[in-house]
Amino acid sequence: MDDSGVGGERRSPLRRPGRPRRATAKEDTREQILAAAAKLFAQEGYDAASMRGVAREAGVDPALVRHYFTDKAELFTESIAAPMRPDRIVTTVLAGPREHIGENLVRAILQTLEQPGTSARVIRLMHTALGQEFAARMLRQFVMREILKRIAKELGDDDAELRASFAATQMVGLVIARYGLKIEPLASASLATVIARIGPVLQWHLTGTVPAPVPPMPA
Amino acid sequence: MDDSGVGGERRSPLRRPGRPRRATAKEDTREQILAAAAKLFAQEGYDAASMRGVAREAGVDPALVRHYFTDKAELFTESIAAPMRPDRIVTTVLAGPREHIGENLVRAILQTLEQPGTSARVIRLMHTALGQEFAARMLRQFVMREILKRIAKELGDDDAELRASFAATQMVGLVIARYGLKIEPLASASLATVIARIGPVLQWHLTGTVPAPVPPMPA
Repeated sequence: MDDSGVGGERRSPLRRPGRPRRATAKEDTREQILAAAAKLFAQEGYDAASMRGVAREAGVDPALVRHYFTDKAELFTESIAAPMRPDRIVTTVLAGPREHIGENLVRAILQTLEQPGTSARVIRLMHTALGQEFAARMLRQFVMREILKRIAKELGDDDAELRASFAATQMVGLVIARYGLKIEPLASASLATVIARIGPVLQWHLTGTVPAPVPPMPA
Repeated sequence: MDDSGVGGERRSPLRRPGRPRRATAKEDTREQILAAAAKLFAQEGYDAASMRGVAREAGVDPALVRHYFTDKAELFTESIAAPMRPDRIVTTVLAGPREHIGENLVRAILQTLEQPGTSARVIRLMHTALGQEFAARMLRQFVMREILKRIAKELGDDDAELRASFAATQMVGLVIARYGLKIEPLASASLATVIARIGPVLQWHLTGTVPAPVPPMPA
C-alpha cells in the first residue's frame, strides 16, 4: 500500500517542524478533493468519473489527486468513508490456491469486519445505498468494476461475472444478517462456524458446476 | 387464508347496502389497531407484544383484533406494511418434498417478489431495518420466530436453527443484490438461472452436511 498521504493525520513528507499550518492546508486540500469526488461520483457514477475530472472539480492539479489517492477505487472508498478495501481483499484472495478461494474470501472479509467499528460502518453504507439511488449506483458500479470483474477475469470463463455476482449475494446477505439485523443463532456463531458454512457456498458460486436449469413451476 | 377483513377495501360481512359509514368506521378501527400494533411492537419487540396487548393499547375488544387479523404474524406484517408473508411461503414449501426445499423456497420467494411493487417495498423495509434499531429488532424477531423456528422444527435436528439462519443469509443477500443494489449480471438474470444457482445453496444450508471447521488463518 502506498502511504503517500492517505489518512491526513499521518505525518507527511510535506510537513516540516515549525510549519503546522502546512499540515492544516494539506488536510484542507484532501477534504476538498474528497468533496469534489463525492459530488462527481454522485453525478456521473463510478464508471464515468475520473481522477482527472475530480481534480478539475476540486480546482487542483491532477498530480495532487494522485499524490493523495493511489487510484480511483481508493478515492471512491475514501469519499464514501468505506471502512474496508474489498477490492484489495479480492486481489489477495485470488492470488491464493484456487480450491480455497471460497474459504479464504469469507475469512479475509470477516476478519476485516470484526475490527472495532468496521461492521457498523459497512451497515451504514448498505443503509445509504438502499435508500438513495445515487448511492446504490455508486456502490453497484464499484462492486462490479473493482470486485466482480477482477474475480471474473481471474476465473476466466464465460459466465464468470455471473458467478461472481452470485458469490456477492452470499457475502452481502451474510454481512447484513449477522451484523445488521443480528439474526440468531448466526450473529453469535463463531468465525470458524461461519467460515465452514459460507466458504463452500462461495466456492460453489465461484467455481462449481451449475445444475441444469429447473423447469418452471406448474401454475 | 382467512379473509375476515384483511384489506379494508374488501367487501365486508359487516357492511350492508345503504350503510356506507359503517365501512369507514371499520376502516378506522382497523387503522387504529395497526397504529397501536406498530407502537407496541416497537416498544416491546415482536416476541413480547401480544394480540391482547395491542387490543388494550388500541382501546378495543381483543375479539375485534382477531376479527381483523388472523394471528400475530399477520398483525405484524400488516403493521409494517410487509408486502409478502414469508412465514406462509415457508410453511407451504416445507410441506413439499424434502429434497426440493431449496429450489422450491427460492422459486416461491422470487415469484412473490417479482409481483409489481413488491420488491421495492421489501427493499424499503430492509432500508428501515438497517437504519433503526427498533425496526431491526422487530424484523429479526419476526424472522426468527415465524420463519427460522418453523424451518428448524421441520428439519428437526440439533443445529437446524443455525442452518436456517444461514439459509436466510443467502435469501437476504439475493434480494438486496438483485432488487436493491441491482448488481449485474445478476439483476438481469432470468428466474430460471437464479433458481438454478440459489436453490442448491439453500438446500445445502438447510439439509447438507457441513465440512469440518477450517483451521484459523496463519498470522
